[in-house]
Amino acid sequence: MNPKQIKVVQYGLGPIGLQITRYLLERKIFTIVGAIDIDPRKVGKDLGTVAGLNKKLRVRVSSDANKVLKNSHAGIVVLTTASSLKTIKPQILQVIFHGKNVVSTCEELVYPWLTNPQIAKEIDLAAKKKKVSVLSTGVNPGFLMDFLPMAVTAVCKEVNNITVERIQNAKYRRVPFQQKIGAGITKNEFNKKVKDGTLRHVGLTESVHLIASKLGWKLDKTQDIIEPVVAAKNVSAGKMKIAKGNALGVQQTGLGIKNNEEKIKLLFRATIGEESPRDRIIIDGLPPIDMTIKNGVNGDIATCAITMNAIPIVINAKPGLRTMADVEPISCFI
Amino acid sequence: MNPKQIKVVQYGLGPIGLQITRYLLERKIFTIVGAIDIDPRKVGKDLGTVAGLNKKLRVRVSSDANKVLKNSHAGIVVLTTASSLKTIKPQILQVIFHGKNVVSTCEELVYPWLTNPQIAKEIDLAAKKKKVSVLSTGVNPGFLMDFLPMAVTAVCKEVNNITVERIQNAKYRRVPFQQKIGAGITKNEFNKKVKDGTLRHVGLTESVHLIASKLGWKLDKTQDIIEPVVAAKNVSAGKMKIAKGNALGVQQTGLGIKNNEEKIKLLFRATIGEESPRDRIIIDGLPPIDMTIKNGVNGDIATCAITMNAIPIVINAKPGLRTMADVEPISCFI
Repeated sequence: MNPKQIKVVQYGLGPIGLQITRYLLERKIFTIVGAIDIDPRKVGKDLGTVAGLNKKLRVRVSSDANKVLKNSHAGIVVLTTASSLKTIKPQILQVIFHGKNVVSTCEELVYPWLTNPQIAKEIDLAAKKKKVSVLSTGVNPGFLMDFLPMAVTAVCKEVNNITVERIQNAKYRRVPFQQKIGAGITKNEFNKKVKDGTLRHVGLTESVHLIASKLGWKLDKTQDIIEPVVAAKNVSAGKMKIAKGNALGVQQTGLGIKNNEEKIKLLFRATIGEESPRDRIIIDGLPPIDMTIKNGVNGDIATCAITMNAIPIVINAKPGLRTMADVEPISCFI
Repeated sequence: MNPKQIKVVQYGLGPIGLQITRYLLERKIFTIVGAIDIDPRKVGKDLGTVAGLNKKLRVRVSSDANKVLKNSHAGIVVLTTASSLKTIKPQILQVIFHGKNVVSTCEELVYPWLTNPQIAKEIDLAAKKKKVSVLSTGVNPGFLMDFLPMAVTAVCKEVNNITVERIQNAKYRRVPFQQKIGAGITKNEFNKKVKDGTLRHVGLTESVHLIASKLGWKLDKTQDIIEPVVAAKNVSAGKMKIAKGNALGVQQTGLGIKNNEEKIKLLFRATIGEESPRDRIIIDGLPPIDMTIKNGVNGDIATCAITMNAIPIVINAKPGLRTMADVEPISCFI
């Protein structure tokens, strides 16, 4: 581990960006030297105030990314602005232009080589030219449903297929999360939200591609299926009442198919009252592996932690657009 | 993944070396171009015969390592001759001298920087000079009790301590394995074997050091404690009868201690009739993680598989003595 101080610019101050900010401040190796966001309620304020801390950090939030990047001596930028690669692309290229490494939580950037090959190439070439590295990570995509199953196959002589389950009980989660998974709405409303793209977990296809590429599997196609999980009876959770027949939450399945066989199956389910929440990886191979994380991993903490923990790894990585499959393993470090 | 053919020399033809040989032959990307062993019953024979296959491989087993290494165009040598770093050191230096990469199952080589720092430095410098990479791996040490817990902490903001359990039921294992763990012998015989070093799983201390170094923990000391697990009643397993008071098997504990606290605890237990065999990783951290592999991972298959799967990773790694903490993640690939 590099013992030197690491200077960081935090680019994007939504809930995840602010949680990462608070994590970075707690770990002595990091110094935040810049903060970028376009939200007029945040611009001009001290980052400590915006992050809900009781102290000033002497870092003023700026909407002028170019100016912050140009004037800072940061080694890396933590980019947490958007899930869409098209949205985030100009921001990444701008950061690269200023010679900074990038670690991002952009879901579509986790493995864009097949879903957005042109943008992937463009970012890769720009990063190589400037000798910096770009990595996107997070709990999912980035770790639980791609890196971890992929890494566990290390001990397998053969792998026939891989199933990953991420099953969450949303009963005690924040209301915005419950709304995000469609809890309480009718099937029609649910399907309308799926159709207009507002009810969707981003990243299953990227995870499927990441696993397949690492294992050398050429898939015929991928699928991403979103369905409501419907209440069989009236259910109440806190203030929320869910009528029989309405959605308890969502089930989303990412498939990687070859010769009509489901080689990779990623099952993400989050509902009110889900029993036995878990993260589970099943490798049908030699030896077979059936691995379960009891109660699953808390998503928000995990995403912020892995993004922070990735920083020294990204700084030392080979230049270019990297993935979780081709950088050194990330660990929590002090 | 490098699509080119990879030429391999297999150095060491004990049970693990021969099983790796058979695995390599099944995977098209590998060609075995040399085989080295000093056992007079194997020298001069075709490798196919020695490996128990029904075909000739046109590779003759040789005891002249120098000649094999000099004349082969191998990119890598799979070195499976010994657990002791002192024993294996001249072999590694010889392989490096001939400009070949090394992947080994030598337990003491998994993380020798604190247990054998002089030898570690010597190997590292020699490898860097010749621009080749050296990695030791295996299921344990190398994966289950070090790489995997270390990699899982990626999603943790904080880690207080790490416990890993590898619990095996030896009832249906081969007799040599049952003997190796001391099943059936008296407590006195057991303690004598521990004292003369013949009853010992090698590698727990290396795993403790590997985890600690990756997490940036400076330990005060490590411990490696071996105890018999004693039968509370008469037990029979196949032809084996174990009298009450005799050993059912072994429990070995590797500890990493800091400020009188057990920061890392690796518990390896193998007994006749062990209930709920498993591999389990418990991270006391934020978030907490409790992960279990049901029935555990078959050790022999896993060690041979990960050694084979490591080959392209080692070939592409940075020159020098590498560890599982600083190479790209290994996966099963085709």
